[in-house]
Amino acid sequence: MDDAGTVNTEHDQIAVEEPLEIRLGNDPFVVTMRTPGNDEELAAGFLVTEGIVSKRSDIKRISRCATAPNPENTVRLDLVGTSGLKEIKSNRHGAIAASCGVCGKTSIEKVRGTFPRVDSKISIDRELLLQLPNRLRESQAVFDQTGGLHSAGIFDLEGKLLFQCEDVGRHNALDKVIGQAFLNNLWPLDQHVLLVSGRVAFEIMQKALAARIGIVAAVSAPSSLAISFALDSGQTLVGFLRQPSFNIYSHPQRIR
Amino acid sequence: MDDAGTVNTEHDQIAVEEPLEIRLGNDPFVVTMRTPGNDEELAAGFLVTEGIVSKRSDIKRISRCATAPNPENTVRLDLVGTSGLKEIKSNRHGAIAASCGVCGKTSIEKVRGTFPRVDSKISIDRELLLQLPNRLRESQAVFDQTGGLHSAGIFDLEGKLLFQCEDVGRHNALDKVIGQAFLNNLWPLDQHVLLVSGRVAFEIMQKALAARIGIVAAVSAPSSLAISFALDSGQTLVGFLRQPSFNIYSHPQRIR
Repeated sequence: MDDAGTVNTEHDQIAVEEPLEIRLGNDPFVVTMRTPGNDEELAAGFLVTEGIVSKRSDIKRISRCATAPNPENTVRLDLVGTSGLKEIKSNRHGAIAASCGVCGKTSIEKVRGTFPRVDSKISIDRELLLQLPNRLRESQAVFDQTGGLHSAGIFDLEGKLLFQCEDVGRHNALDKVIGQAFLNNLWPLDQHVLLVSGRVAFEIMQKALAARIGIVAAVSAPSSLAISFALDSGQTLVGFLRQPSFNIYSHPQRIR
Repeated sequence: MDDAGTVNTEHDQIAVEEPLEIRLGNDPFVVTMRTPGNDEELAAGFLVTEGIVSKRSDIKRISRCATAPNPENTVRLDLVGTSGLKEIKSNRHGAIAASCGVCGKTSIEKVRGTFPRVDSKISIDRELLLQLPNRLRESQAVFDQTGGLHSAGIFDLEGKLLFQCEDVGRHNALDKVIGQAFLNNLWPLDQHVLLVSGRVAFEIMQKALAARIGIVAAVSAPSSLAISFALDSGQTLVGFLRQPSFNIYSHPQRIR
């Protein structure tokens, strides 16, 4: 940027946002605004975290829709069964789901998912935990340049980064990494730690729970509902994870 | 925060997030995760920016649902007509709308709204524009304490802050200020400037267009789709609005 108010679109990198249409078979299902890349993972992760599929074999095929008006922005999933789908239809007055995990649902009762509590005995060393944000940042190709992308990473309990994705939407970044793990048959993620680059709201905890993630850490603040959700779900929630400290909001026994 | 890894939930303020159920008459319509406060404005603003209502007289009554299971988290709107509603139903496979403006829609074609282009001749002085972030911040009650809330403000062309709202979701903060203006019969906002505290994605531009806002400014980065939307819609989009400079991404003639 030059001096005040100069018209200037060159000195900053812009985060790319494009619509992705997810189809179930031939039917349009949902559109999410995402940063292109890992689209198949995003689509699979979305179905997982919405509770529509729960195991790899539920998905028969993931493909680009060559016949769609925007093939680069359209992913088609063919499912083996439709029981989960039937359930979500009845929860949403139609074949609608939503990229942010809660919108699209019509009443408060339907917002809370039905994923069971996490009660795993895993734990991670606190010094190791403090190193995770740097490891996520180092692998993050775009964030530092644009300042406009959220990042999510899946680590093992030794602090090794297994999957990392970025997106203009924080829920999409999470769906992408969850979808990556799912499609690679690393499932469920009950021996893993999730780290997100920004804040943690309710939907992040809920999506993590769908993947059975017992430790969720964030560089920034959690919301009140994220905390109360974590207390109920059995998940360990860590916020403000920034050297030299962090806060633990729930189930601290998993931090050694 | 104390030393590394101390369990500590006292030294930071937590942004409050709770579900708000919006009902149309007796029917559940949508749930959005929001920070309590200005709920009626949020509900009205959401209907406006979704194109369901367009003038104050379209809304017969806004009330708390005393009979709902969660009256503090339920707002009921009674509309005069239902033509807009019928349209959104056909666009969404059911009476579903979504808090983030795009999700819930089933195909890319339906994502772009039908709000007409802005071609207003308004303008604002660049030195004045640079002062707006401070004015927004000064009126922002919670943001500095929690670091977890987004803020949106409506200014007149003399830089006076008319409405300001905060929320854990950036689209909600915008729906709240738009709803405030709408319910106060300051409508349309075609002589006004919108400032948002964070980033600008597609949905923010689309909601602003629904309110006829010709100048949208953000403290942080726009997305690529926000820029292309603004170029098409006729809106002036300013990003990285931070002393001593800013970037103009579209229609710079409105910045003097």
